[in-house]
Amino acid sequence: MNPVPPRLSCPLPIMDHDRVQLAHGSGGLLSAQLIDRLFLPRFANPILNRLEDQATLELPAGRVAMSTDTFVVDPIFFPGGSIGDLAVNGTVNDVAMSGAPPLYLAAAFVLEEGLPMADLHRVLVAMEEAARVAGVVVVTGDTKVVPRGACDKIFITTTGIGVVPEGVTISAASLRPGDAIILSGTLADHGMAILTTRQGLSFHSRIQSDTAALYGLVAAMLAVCPTIHALRDPTRGGAATTLNEFVRSSRVGIELEEGRITVRPEVQGACEVLGIDPLFVANEGKLIAAVPGEAAAGVLAAMRNHPQGREAAIIGRVTAQHPGLVVLRTALGAERIVEMPVAEQLPRIC
Amino acid sequence: MNPVPPRLSCPLPIMDHDRVQLAHGSGGLLSAQLIDRLFLPRFANPILNRLEDQATLELPAGRVAMSTDTFVVDPIFFPGGSIGDLAVNGTVNDVAMSGAPPLYLAAAFVLEEGLPMADLHRVLVAMEEAARVAGVVVVTGDTKVVPRGACDKIFITTTGIGVVPEGVTISAASLRPGDAIILSGTLADHGMAILTTRQGLSFHSRIQSDTAALYGLVAAMLAVCPTIHALRDPTRGGAATTLNEFVRSSRVGIELEEGRITVRPEVQGACEVLGIDPLFVANEGKLIAAVPGEAAAGVLAAMRNHPQGREAAIIGRVTAQHPGLVVLRTALGAERIVEMPVAEQLPRIC
Repeated sequence: MNPVPPRLSCPLPIMDHDRVQLAHGSGGLLSAQLIDRLFLPRFANPILNRLEDQATLELPAGRVAMSTDTFVVDPIFFPGGSIGDLAVNGTVNDVAMSGAPPLYLAAAFVLEEGLPMADLHRVLVAMEEAARVAGVVVVTGDTKVVPRGACDKIFITTTGIGVVPEGVTISAASLRPGDAIILSGTLADHGMAILTTRQGLSFHSRIQSDTAALYGLVAAMLAVCPTIHALRDPTRGGAATTLNEFVRSSRVGIELEEGRITVRPEVQGACEVLGIDPLFVANEGKLIAAVPGEAAAGVLAAMRNHPQGREAAIIGRVTAQHPGLVVLRTALGAERIVEMPVAEQLPRIC
Repeated sequence: MNPVPPRLSCPLPIMDHDRVQLAHGSGGLLSAQLIDRLFLPRFANPILNRLEDQATLELPAGRVAMSTDTFVVDPIFFPGGSIGDLAVNGTVNDVAMSGAPPLYLAAAFVLEEGLPMADLHRVLVAMEEAARVAGVVVVTGDTKVVPRGACDKIFITTTGIGVVPEGVTISAASLRPGDAIILSGTLADHGMAILTTRQGLSFHSRIQSDTAALYGLVAAMLAVCPTIHALRDPTRGGAATTLNEFVRSSRVGIELEEGRITVRPEVQGACEVLGIDPLFVANEGKLIAAVPGEAAAGVLAAMRNHPQGREAAIIGRVTAQHPGLVVLRTALGAERIVEMPVAEQLPRIC
């Protein structure tokens, strides 16, 4: 599905230590070795290579979109990806949901003393690959090392910027009655991949995270309809949270058709075993759009032509009725309100 | 010294919980309560208030400077400041060292389950105040909560952007023989404030962190000399690290006069007790500049006229001799090489 061919595997560079030491975060010689041997070979580019305390960037004219996220996922490697992929894709997707192509990324690492250098390297290789596929350049960064027990393995904060194209104004506050609600694919893959891995439910091992960069899909949608009203990727809190944010920000209602929402059979099975509603589970490679009703068919066709939107579907519509509420019509014709989740279902999911 | 008067103290808003719960990071209702009651009142502005997954910013024309840093300082409150001040000042200073006025900040939080809400609030109030003094606006953010023991209290990653004025090109690679090396004030205050607090050395309690935003000082310097060659704030690794980075990037040498470098008596005393060289200790409100020799007197005068530069001094000069080496001439006329530090002296200093 990915148009960019993967690189050959990348061996661990020779380092003085096979585990991260406190001194790797000191700002001194060992910090420099970590940067020079492990980080720079992965992300090398003319801006980063200057190794100033800040990157200086030439940006095209226009409004700048900026987004930041910290990734604390546990485990750091999981079926379909790692904290490295997630840290790139999560932030480039938040930028992309403004309609802006993501251009540049800053990456800040907190490493636990004792982290195997091979694990860090594997995370960095995943980030390199994800950045290459997403078309973003890592231009600046930071590395801190904390003593054993002061963090769990590795946390990564990425901050992305892009430039919003002229004429595009996408906002959770812009939904209008009559808009179609489009979901780009299946729900709950990422969250259930993490949860089943964490709980050692090996019979569900076919479940893979959907982590992916979505700007290509967004660009295909904007080419058909530059006036898309709202776009958001339903990560933490799942589709239920995104849809509730939409109705609150726009003071409208949303009616969903349960039958239009697709969940992979193995994911559905795991959700049933664990008693979890897929509407509340995190995704990392899906988006939900609100588009003017008259443009919906065109946008849907464009999405289905794109590798990341093959399973896209119109799952509902925006209504002036019941403002602030998301109402789901079940296959049997019953209706229930989809609430904003209250309690933590899955900590450290991203 | 601060031209902006402090705000009245700010009481803790009423929250359903007096400690951070995992659900505060779920993306659901409790996340929304945390954002609405604790975060938004501190940072409210038209861009952040939109609560999109990304901020969209109008920037003036010019090269954009971007910098990111994670703050993991232990303890989170210390004489002279907190992790909140540090997270704002540290990043705005990295932006300012490009010559750009810092404009916008993204802030990402990792909170440990069980963190007292009052502590989080105190950190946020400190960030609000620091941002106000620095003239930056917090436009986007993220909050993750990890289970007890998966991080130590609170980590904050800030990413700042600004726009570099036309004609300004500051780089660690731009030092030239004949440049004067100017230090803006005393060394080692921040690092020794942290270390003496951590070790319970109460007799050194007069030692305060120097955490401060430095763009005002930079602007005063640029007004006199827009062609400043290099600027850097000597944080982790101290002045020794910054000066070694200068000589490596520019392939020049630096000669320092020990007698020109000032250290507060209480800081010097603590350094002696603990056997630490102040040249290797972190600062959070100081800068080191390399300026063309003929402009040095003018820049120094401008700095001494600014509250943050009253104790500025020309501490050395750039030479074509011994490229790659920083040489310190002691009061007695002896010379020694100031090396890049190898080992961690003070983990979690920032």
